[in-house]
Amino acid sequence: MPVRAEEIEHLREMVIRMASMVEAAIRDSVRSLVDRDSELAQRVIEGDHKINALDVQIDEECIKLLALMQPMAKDLRFITTAMKITTDLERIADNAVNISERALDLNRYPILKPYIDIPRMSRIAQGMVRDAIDAFIRYDKKLAVDVIMRDDEVDDLNEAVFEELITIMRRNPDTIDRAVQVSYVSKYLERIADHATNIAEMVIYMIEGRIVRHTAPQ
Amino acid sequence: MPVRAEEIEHLREMVIRMASMVEAAIRDSVRSLVDRDSELAQRVIEGDHKINALDVQIDEECIKLLALMQPMAKDLRFITTAMKITTDLERIADNAVNISERALDLNRYPILKPYIDIPRMSRIAQGMVRDAIDAFIRYDKKLAVDVIMRDDEVDDLNEAVFEELITIMRRNPDTIDRAVQVSYVSKYLERIADHATNIAEMVIYMIEGRIVRHTAPQ
Repeated sequence: MPVRAEEIEHLREMVIRMASMVEAAIRDSVRSLVDRDSELAQRVIEGDHKINALDVQIDEECIKLLALMQPMAKDLRFITTAMKITTDLERIADNAVNISERALDLNRYPILKPYIDIPRMSRIAQGMVRDAIDAFIRYDKKLAVDVIMRDDEVDDLNEAVFEELITIMRRNPDTIDRAVQVSYVSKYLERIADHATNIAEMVIYMIEGRIVRHTAPQ
Repeated sequence: MPVRAEEIEHLREMVIRMASMVEAAIRDSVRSLVDRDSELAQRVIEGDHKINALDVQIDEECIKLLALMQPMAKDLRFITTAMKITTDLERIADNAVNISERALDLNRYPILKPYIDIPRMSRIAQGMVRDAIDAFIRYDKKLAVDVIMRDDEVDDLNEAVFEELITIMRRNPDTIDRAVQVSYVSKYLERIADHATNIAEMVIYMIEGRIVRHTAPQ
């Protein structure tokens, strides 16, 4: 029997639910750092298993659909893309856990400097994740392309944070430990944006049914 | 028509080919740093598109098998796992490119200190990738578990490298730029080991047909 619209709809809902949990994890991890709220950091870390469980559940649902139904070309690509996308979402959540762990550490020491670029990176990265998933759900190629474009902004901010931290470390070697921790947070956010970009690339691939990933030799 | 053994065999061969290209990329990227061989670094960067092309080709092959055949449970999981595994392999290759880019930078300046832990990490990471793929090909759960166990070793080495670099930076702030670059190389290798671990987890999941990923709340 072919896949019914309800089944695809159900899958779609699960992916949306997972994406909003992941977005919240990013937001809360950075908030736990900026507001020095170690309890919130702890909650992000402890909540990660729910995202992992949903990842596995979606995977099982996809396998079931592939096994029991005979998905048509369009649904087939939607299902296989969902399986890949949720792997990225799950790893984004892992990065939020990593940020929370750094926050737990950093919150025990005096603040190096007010966080300005980090929250900006976080907002952009959250938007990228949200829009990449929206592009998937709505088959919106334009939105997916837009997500990919935003990746450079996050890379630039990561570079800027890094340069600034180098200056701070040079000026006062006592800051090295903390500065390196902050640079890791920045790197985790950059990686989250990379995952969102990967999702967007897979969405375009799904829509076009052809290769837009890795378009040219680099 | 059901998937024929030759088709699964062909898929298996493509995955093995991709894995050995990825392994070579890791090895060469670290060699380009240790031997200060910038031409080799350049070759890794330029060769990456071949790995990307193979990733897309395997993806297409899997979609074709899912679309045209009616894979039985075991083959179905093999095919969907192949699709996910190659995403990890492709990203491992991206990390090798990142290492090569850092090597190009670092090779222009005097060496900080002889590289000892980095080549060790690289050897372990390469072995993890190779064995994770072997475990996939041979349905070898024991080997997959063994890969996962080795991840801690790489994490510990990454920590050790990091601590040592902090000491070097403290002693001489002029080394900060280079030291941070080296810490990134170490981080990229750690990430490669993480991808190998992810592959191994997916292999166990494939073999057991149940969840070994994310086994417990963290």
